[in-house]
Amino acid sequence: MLLNLPSKTHEARQAKLRARIEKQELALLVVTNPRNIFYLTGFRGSAGVAAWGASDAALWVDPRYTLQARDEAKGIEVIDEKGSLLKAVARWLRKKKPRRVGFEDGHLTCSEFRLLERVSRGSFKFEPASGIIEALRFVKDRDEIARIREASRVTVEAFEEILPLVKPGVKESELAAEIEYRMRRKGADGPAFDTIVASGRRGAFPHARASNKVLGKSELVIFDMGAILSGYASDMTRTLYLGQPGGRIKRLYNAVLEAQHMAVESLRQGVRGGEVDEAARGVLSRRGLANFFTHSTGHGVGLDIHEKPRLGKGDKTRLEVGCVVTAEPGVYIEGLGGIRLEDTVVVGSEGPEVLTTAAKSGWCIS
Amino acid sequence: MLLNLPSKTHEARQAKLRARIEKQELALLVVTNPRNIFYLTGFRGSAGVAAWGASDAALWVDPRYTLQARDEAKGIEVIDEKGSLLKAVARWLRKKKPRRVGFEDGHLTCSEFRLLERVSRGSFKFEPASGIIEALRFVKDRDEIARIREASRVTVEAFEEILPLVKPGVKESELAAEIEYRMRRKGADGPAFDTIVASGRRGAFPHARASNKVLGKSELVIFDMGAILSGYASDMTRTLYLGQPGGRIKRLYNAVLEAQHMAVESLRQGVRGGEVDEAARGVLSRRGLANFFTHSTGHGVGLDIHEKPRLGKGDKTRLEVGCVVTAEPGVYIEGLGGIRLEDTVVVGSEGPEVLTTAAKSGWCIS
Repeated sequence: MLLNLPSKTHEARQAKLRARIEKQELALLVVTNPRNIFYLTGFRGSAGVAAWGASDAALWVDPRYTLQARDEAKGIEVIDEKGSLLKAVARWLRKKKPRRVGFEDGHLTCSEFRLLERVSRGSFKFEPASGIIEALRFVKDRDEIARIREASRVTVEAFEEILPLVKPGVKESELAAEIEYRMRRKGADGPAFDTIVASGRRGAFPHARASNKVLGKSELVIFDMGAILSGYASDMTRTLYLGQPGGRIKRLYNAVLEAQHMAVESLRQGVRGGEVDEAARGVLSRRGLANFFTHSTGHGVGLDIHEKPRLGKGDKTRLEVGCVVTAEPGVYIEGLGGIRLEDTVVVGSEGPEVLTTAAKSGWCIS
Repeated sequence: MLLNLPSKTHEARQAKLRARIEKQELALLVVTNPRNIFYLTGFRGSAGVAAWGASDAALWVDPRYTLQARDEAKGIEVIDEKGSLLKAVARWLRKKKPRRVGFEDGHLTCSEFRLLERVSRGSFKFEPASGIIEALRFVKDRDEIARIREASRVTVEAFEEILPLVKPGVKESELAAEIEYRMRRKGADGPAFDTIVASGRRGAFPHARASNKVLGKSELVIFDMGAILSGYASDMTRTLYLGQPGGRIKRLYNAVLEAQHMAVESLRQGVRGGEVDEAARGVLSRRGLANFFTHSTGHGVGLDIHEKPRLGKGDKTRLEVGCVVTAEPGVYIEGLGGIRLEDTVVVGSEGPEVLTTAAKSGWCIS
């Protein structure tokens, strides 16, 4: 249902892009980031180069993608190229004789850029122009939020389904496999990242993958998971304890729970990224846990699992209605393990809306 | 079993790297590609920057990865950095006062390189040096081949298990979910790429993903799948037909089968990439099918699903014993669909060894 947007959505996005290109006094913008190409045209291939100008819109693809691009890409001419796509674009640029050409310096590698420069023969000036399309992507439209909502829904359902399997003796990797399988069966294109299931002391590695370690009694287990659905990501973390936790674990868990709640509550129009971080960090600091919270509080979620804004110390960016971000404080204690809670949240006109609605209270499994 | 290599493997790889760095008259090499860092140290994090010199070996990681890096990384000092890793490396370089510093120009983006240059204050010369580590990775050692063999085994087993599910009425995406789940359960870290299940006319898109399309009677179905296991990839394609194929489908299938067989047979020490491509392309050309074979015949497989060598028209690189590559000719006919067959193959001292051993004859399902 959600897969194919009406072409007017893409045309509207391209119109906004043109306005930005003009404002930055660029004659043309070369786009190489596949997610940006997907956002602007609907083309889902993993390789392709596009260029936009006041009256130009062209997408170069190799023969593997010709038919697919003609089928999917909206509002743009598809050009079939058997050789190097970047060389083809460079030759095209040379003919256009533009003055200033923007390129995605945050995506193009140094060697790709050298090729582009060499073949276009320096007849004009290249300007670093990353961030133009990311700025359009910062606020999500209704269609995008609907996709992230769906991706969140399948994440929650998959997690709830595997809860009965979480017990001592099962491997982390088996649980990760079950989660990813269920997300897939519910319509996900795949996981948004390698699903994390980290038990016991492994939980102290915030980005540990699922391993062949077997879950043990009296261990904390972190589940960090997300789906890609219709191109958009979700991101959710829950922490369980296998057994009856003692006072220390309870105190740590409740501290993270409160920090996460405060972070979510702070997600409102006009609030700065750094203020969201402070909302969570303040709770942990007041309990003497600041040193154990070793990462930032959250990040934007959309076509990328990590995108703007960053919600970390001192970040100045202000949230807008339609931003979708995570709130995910945690504590990591060497030798003991980790506790993290994370939701994907929409900044709504009437306050934050949590999309990843799995319970956080049912965390004790005996 | 295979996950943790003895540290001498990593030390030996780093010693080879040092010899290459010296040969290229570099004082230091900055490494940013995570797969290259994994190859040299065993560290599996997704973020980190490393540098090597005659007597230096340092790995900068952010606090999320400190404990993991200390646990996994061999033969290298781990440096914990709360701020920008590239800035930290730049400051370190400035102190070292080297003359020439290599960097991975095929991996570093233009904006990352600008940051590195700016903070290191141009006190020395940066030299593009991508490919040094890739050259080491070109020939796989025994441990690496063992991992690719395992990744191939789980791919084959998963495919064979889902064959009974392949029938009209099932969705492409359900089959992809089943394949990925079974690979995971058998020990894979995850799929090596989005599993392709492309039926009917969708098969004419060589890189179509699995969609919600339902398999129909008298349709061709392409399965292109692979696993990542202990960091290494496998890659296999099979094509099935749902029903009793007519003469045209049979002729096309047998042409691809023969082309693929000829490509595999050509995979021997000293043969050039272009010659492998010609082995497959020649078969299809002689049957008037050259125009329908729209991609190259194969590519290297290892830590990356696509790596050197490329087996395409005119490629000059000579294969060596220990190279692992795919052989994957196909034909794509708009409106009808596609047929592709692919194996992951080791170039052995006594000839090619196919690692992806699923049958190619049982392709007719009625």
